[in-house]
Amino acid sequence: MGQFSASKPLKIGLIGLGKIAVDQHIPSIRSNPSLRLVAGCSPSSRVDGLACYNSMEEMLAAHPDIDALSICTPPQIRHSIAKKVIAAGKHTFLEKPPAATLGEAEAIAALAKAKGVSLLASWHSRFAPAVEAVRLWIAERNISSLKIVWKENVRQWHPGQKWIFEAGGMGVFDPGINSLSILTAILAEAVIVKKADLHIPVNCDAPIQVEMDMTTESGLPIRAEYDFLQTGIQTWSIYIESAKGEKLALHLGGTELEINGHVKIKEKEAEYSGLYAHFLSLVNAGASDADFAPLRIVADAMLLGKRIAAPEYIE
Amino acid sequence: MGQFSASKPLKIGLIGLGKIAVDQHIPSIRSNPSLRLVAGCSPSSRVDGLACYNSMEEMLAAHPDIDALSICTPPQIRHSIAKKVIAAGKHTFLEKPPAATLGEAEAIAALAKAKGVSLLASWHSRFAPAVEAVRLWIAERNISSLKIVWKENVRQWHPGQKWIFEAGGMGVFDPGINSLSILTAILAEAVIVKKADLHIPVNCDAPIQVEMDMTTESGLPIRAEYDFLQTGIQTWSIYIESAKGEKLALHLGGTELEINGHVKIKEKEAEYSGLYAHFLSLVNAGASDADFAPLRIVADAMLLGKRIAAPEYIE
Repeated sequence: MGQFSASKPLKIGLIGLGKIAVDQHIPSIRSNPSLRLVAGCSPSSRVDGLACYNSMEEMLAAHPDIDALSICTPPQIRHSIAKKVIAAGKHTFLEKPPAATLGEAEAIAALAKAKGVSLLASWHSRFAPAVEAVRLWIAERNISSLKIVWKENVRQWHPGQKWIFEAGGMGVFDPGINSLSILTAILAEAVIVKKADLHIPVNCDAPIQVEMDMTTESGLPIRAEYDFLQTGIQTWSIYIESAKGEKLALHLGGTELEINGHVKIKEKEAEYSGLYAHFLSLVNAGASDADFAPLRIVADAMLLGKRIAAPEYIE
Repeated sequence: MGQFSASKPLKIGLIGLGKIAVDQHIPSIRSNPSLRLVAGCSPSSRVDGLACYNSMEEMLAAHPDIDALSICTPPQIRHSIAKKVIAAGKHTFLEKPPAATLGEAEAIAALAKAKGVSLLASWHSRFAPAVEAVRLWIAERNISSLKIVWKENVRQWHPGQKWIFEAGGMGVFDPGINSLSILTAILAEAVIVKKADLHIPVNCDAPIQVEMDMTTESGLPIRAEYDFLQTGIQTWSIYIESAKGEKLALHLGGTELEINGHVKIKEKEAEYSGLYAHFLSLVNAGASDADFAPLRIVADAMLLGKRIAAPEYIE
């Protein structure tokens, strides 16, 4: 079918026109000459300067030449939408998390494989500028501990996103899973959850604060602390120590790398540009990238975790 | 290494000497001439007429010729024990559920594969006498609905099993997962959780009652109702209707099969005898059976489920 490139761009439609679509997907697609943003759909939102429709069906009727669809809806409805997207024979870009459950995610992957379309279960944080350098640093040494501190203010970053505290919305795991997507990219071994304290507001279904102990088969202690009520300085950091006492710190979600106190990398984030370049290369290669390990860790934490009642949450 | 048989029995040790070991494992192993129960270990329990030790290490020091170990401990500690069992090069029989998390279960499977020992992640209910007949009945028709009703009295069936309501103990999913092991054996398609109401006692970490809606990719509606506070008649039933209006009912955990109101199968259960015969055949074939689909469904229910406060539970 030929390669997509600047002379023959991959035509993309967006499903879901909320905050992440506007903040990230639209500018990233538009900045890549090998991609073309054709249209978007949402039952409730419109975006200036973009052909918008109420439904995927209307969008595809008007633009049957769309090659690929990016699904940026809340995770609870992603599976039912992905089924229709794949059935229509379109390449599929899933926002994170790929679905509300592992079963849904695996079902989407099976459908994409059967239909022969490319699937990207995206994890944007894996495309932060310093992540690959951390993976290489770890590969070259024995590491003795790893600690994730991911603390942000839900009122600042997720205004009006009521779904986040509903069943399947994952609560503080919605940002926390970004740290897990980095964790599972930088470690060569699988990650196993051993203990989780889940603080769930009495009026919510998903946790607002989590402390979690994990390990690997070789025994690396991994600690994660997630807090959705962080005011003041926001923290998205991973701290790693080597057996020889070397210290690595990855800050600001992967944009800044410090080794033994010296800043080694400090770059502007361009995660979604990287993600879309990756998606294009998958489509051109007839391949898929569907790794659900971060979601499996969250499911295991919810399976194993101790539930602790937290005060009512009112946005 | 030669086949195990009545003339050269597979030598088995038990890890964990609680209710399930005494009620099921010991008589089932002893009734099979191709198996030999050599010893057992537990930090707290003893069984009359069986060589008992405080730890696996002591047991293996006294009986280095043990070929296989059955792990019948509570699920929370199964992974750390399985690591040691596999490292010792012993074939491994895991009670259900195979581990406290999917990550642990997958790690155990990877270790067993790397070491070249046979692993059975056992699901005893799959060996109930009428399960295979149900699978064949479904394979021959279009079915339109499936309902699981699994209601038992925790005080009667799980006396003193405090771990069951602790984090990772799964609560009413401990018996409920038996129905899911049947479900995933009789359906050809994967099962996807869509909604779960989890009733969790205010003093517990695991649900005491669950209502769950599931489906398959082809849209079969599947309902499950679990209750751990059932007094009077105990119910372990699955009801299936075909598109043509035929009705199948599987009762008493899979021992009784009724089709259109007529009893077709009514047999004494012999699940653990079947399980151990299966384990023996796996060991003789150098194969493993490690299907974690039932555990994945529970993890997805816990991930997606709505948490509802239930009254305090006191045994």
